Amino acid sequence: MADETREDEIRPADPPLAEDGARPDDRVDDERHDEENRLKPDYVRAVREALEDGDKGAVYDLVEPLHPADIADLLELFERDERRELAAAITDLMSSEVIAELNDYVRDDMMEALPAGAVAAIAEQLETDDAVQLIEDLGPEEQRAVLAALDAENRAAIESALSYPEETAGRLMSREFVAVPEHMTVGDLIDFLREERDLANDFWEVYVVDHAHHPVGTCALSWILRTPRSVALTDVMKRDQTLIPVTMDQEEVALMFQKYALISAAVVDGNGRLVGQMTVDDVVHIISEEAGEDVLLLSGAGDGDINEPIRDAYTARVRWLIANLGTALVASLIIAMFGAAIEQLVALAILMPIVASIGGNAGTQTMAVTVRAIAMNQLTQANTGRILWREMRVALLNGATIAVLIGIATGIVFTPMLGAVIAAAMVINIVVAGLAGVLVPVIFDRLKQDPAVASSVFVTMITDSMGFFAFLGLAVSSGLVG
Amino acid sequence: MADETREDEIRPADPPLAEDGARPDDRVDDERHDEENRLKPDYVRAVREALEDGDKGAVYDLVEPLHPADIADLLELFERDERRELAAAITDLMSSEVIAELNDYVRDDMMEALPAGAVAAIAEQLETDDAVQLIEDLGPEEQRAVLAALDAENRAAIESALSYPEETAGRLMSREFVAVPEHMTVGDLIDFLREERDLANDFWEVYVVDHAHHPVGTCALSWILRTPRSVALTDVMKRDQTLIPVTMDQEEVALMFQKYALISAAVVDGNGRLVGQMTVDDVVHIISEEAGEDVLLLSGAGDGDINEPIRDAYTARVRWLIANLGTALVASLIIAMFGAAIEQLVALAILMPIVASIGGNAGTQTMAVTVRAIAMNQLTQANTGRILWREMRVALLNGATIAVLIGIATGIVFTPMLGAVIAAAMVINIVVAGLAGVLVPVIFDRLKQDPAVASSVFVTMITDSMGFFAFLGLAVSSGLVG
Repeated sequence: MADETREDEIRPADPPLAEDGARPDDRVDDERHDEENRLKPDYVRAVREALEDGDKGAVYDLVEPLHPADIADLLELFERDERRELAAAITDLMSSEVIAELNDYVRDDMMEALPAGAVAAIAEQLETDDAVQLIEDLGPEEQRAVLAALDAENRAAIESALSYPEETAGRLMSREFVAVPEHMTVGDLIDFLREERDLANDFWEVYVVDHAHHPVGTCALSWILRTPRSVALTDVMKRDQTLIPVTMDQEEVALMFQKYALISAAVVDGNGRLVGQMTVDDVVHIISEEAGEDVLLLSGAGDGDINEPIRDAYTARVRWLIANLGTALVASLIIAMFGAAIEQLVALAILMPIVASIGGNAGTQTMAVTVRAIAMNQLTQANTGRILWREMRVALLNGATIAVLIGIATGIVFTPMLGAVIAAAMVINIVVAGLAGVLVPVIFDRLKQDPAVASSVFVTMITDSMGFFAFLGLAVSSGLVG
Repeated sequence: MADETREDEIRPADPPLAEDGARPDDRVDDERHDEENRLKPDYVRAVREALEDGDKGAVYDLVEPLHPADIADLLELFERDERRELAAAITDLMSSEVIAELNDYVRDDMMEALPAGAVAAIAEQLETDDAVQLIEDLGPEEQRAVLAALDAENRAAIESALSYPEETAGRLMSREFVAVPEHMTVGDLIDFLREERDLANDFWEVYVVDHAHHPVGTCALSWILRTPRSVALTDVMKRDQTLIPVTMDQEEVALMFQKYALISAAVVDGNGRLVGQMTVDDVVHIISEEAGEDVLLLSGAGDGDINEPIRDAYTARVRWLIANLGTALVASLIIAMFGAAIEQLVALAILMPIVASIGGNAGTQTMAVTVRAIAMNQLTQANTGRILWREMRVALLNGATIAVLIGIATGIVFTPMLGAVIAAAMVINIVVAGLAGVLVPVIFDRLKQDPAVASSVFVTMITDSMGFFAFLGLAVSSGLVG
């Protein structure tokens, strides 16, 4: 194991574990994880049973070998009451890493059960960005109580972070980073890193700053290790940096990291001074969240987290159902216009949902492609026309195919004339769906609205209404009924 | 600028640019990028006009200040023919970074226009993982020609990568990594890193391997920099590693990196030997792709890339429209069962799409939440029951709210009895939608199918059919018609 001198002198604040005897592959295919690295149901059941038996020793022994991220997963799998019981049974395994890895809703729920002093004690163990996450969603009163219980230094750092809007770099950034003056050589930097005790444990790049604390360059540690000590830092650093303004939204931060393949990036205030950094291990969560939220937003499922309280899930979703009720009424009004035709030929009532349904599906396909392209900064003013024309061609191909199929089937079951009517209505509706699927999200984007939030309601309204209108209108105007 | 000695002796293969005079914030809010870091339409238009004028010098001057990732973006914004013209105008800016950053479809399209020798020359400039991306989607004949034109070493590396299935670690991993024997001290490692010329330019962690080349630990460079030279590597390295089997799917790799906040991870073959590494800058693209694809898959839009050839987009989408045609027919058959009732009371035809539409939306909400939770490994056998019960409660709340609204409105416009019938049908359909929204994706997942691919068609079929059946069936059985 590590020698004692080293431990006392330079052991970083939170040293890596050197667990002798741990099998190197013990996070894949072990007795606790399935092949997709999820905790096995049998294992979860064993913990639950030990908990129900009140056998805290057995619970502890079962949970102790888990990685903090897996302990967080285990807590999330449990019901609310079990969760608190489990936390109580494994108090000294409930490390800051476990707290930081917990789902937001689960963490908030667990924190609300604790007195302010206990939450403050946990917050002090965390890095500032994780502590902010812990505190930001508490009620205003509880938040004040926790802040008051913090020591002055931590309180100042957390209050500074809370002064920035949610989901901006200022709120999310880490305030622990390594910055050095530009007159240093590589050797000076290495000596500084060896001697300075108060540094973050893991860092990947060092920022070089001028006298006014403006970042002038970035050095990857691998370059420092591979360069002679006498070389000036300004000769090895990369000057072409990607700087993140404190006010930048997390979505933009995520796109920057992806586009420029960043490991870390300096965050600067309004005066261009270095105030923090974002690192890729934090940004991966943002990337995943931002990329994954479109499917939830488009469906009107709000945050869509399975741990969200039921009341929040209800209010988020029912809003969109009510909006959808409004748009469905539009479709109903169109059907009502053709009431006489339907009474005369009930086949219209039987077939009309098909036109609306396929149109809705075609619109959703185009809308999903468009929303994703906008989110990835791939669809801009410079290529909107091209994409619209592309989608029109796809829509014509899809429309023609579906029209032939439904036209022939309808012609056989009902009459050739009704087949022709439904075929024409189908082409019209699929083309309209393609247009709406591109234009609705693009217009929301131009209006600086998130295209994923409300596009669905509008596209569905358009495809439903147009489906009924084209089909019933053609039936009447073709002389089939009327 | 860098001194010559250093450049000659230890300059890494592909050194960072030290562009004097570049403004540090020149990637944000400059004259070429908008506030969301997209290329401004004016700028793109200027390049296009210079290209149309045949003024290659002006094109070059406009494009030259761009980062390679922005040059890739610019190429993607252009039409196919313009793209090739642009590439021809800026040949010496078309670096391997630009090629590596290009969208897959755009890159394939550009490569298909080049002779095999030129593609091979580009591939040799790329790191193996990027070269594999370049070659893997070529036609079999062209692939053979390119491989034949490669030098033996590159060919062997690429053929080895191609021998693994697409989207597995073996295909995606980088073969350039730093591995050292376990008897080294920190000082030995630093000397090795300084002296060994043939190392990757950027690396963040060093792998420690035993005599059989099994990884036994990982060292972050920051620990090496901060530890005395005499300490043994085995005392500073982290033994508790996350190892990626070569056969692991990219989705699992992405989840591993997120869960354990990894910067890089060793890839091991079936015998546990270190054969490559995955680094987070490559994994962020996978995370984004995997998280973003659910919205495309659920809508039936296939890959959903705006650069996908039209024929591919058509075949991917029309399949799902045809499937949807089948499920819409089921709904039509149910309506047909109630043809007599509709003829008697045309209000049924007017209102029935509302029940189906709201039910469909409620089903989509629940399905989106479920699919996302499954993708994030949050929904497992251990908590399926709890989530189902949670969704039932949300559905009852939503159903009750919508039922009251539509029931009262229908009662006023038509008859109280019809209001009661549609209210009851709405509750039934929203609850069924909640059940289907959870169970359909969960069942696909248990059957080892991607729940995002086919869930939509089934959930929509269930909510459409049940909507019509509940509404029309209740209308008949309540004695309203019949």
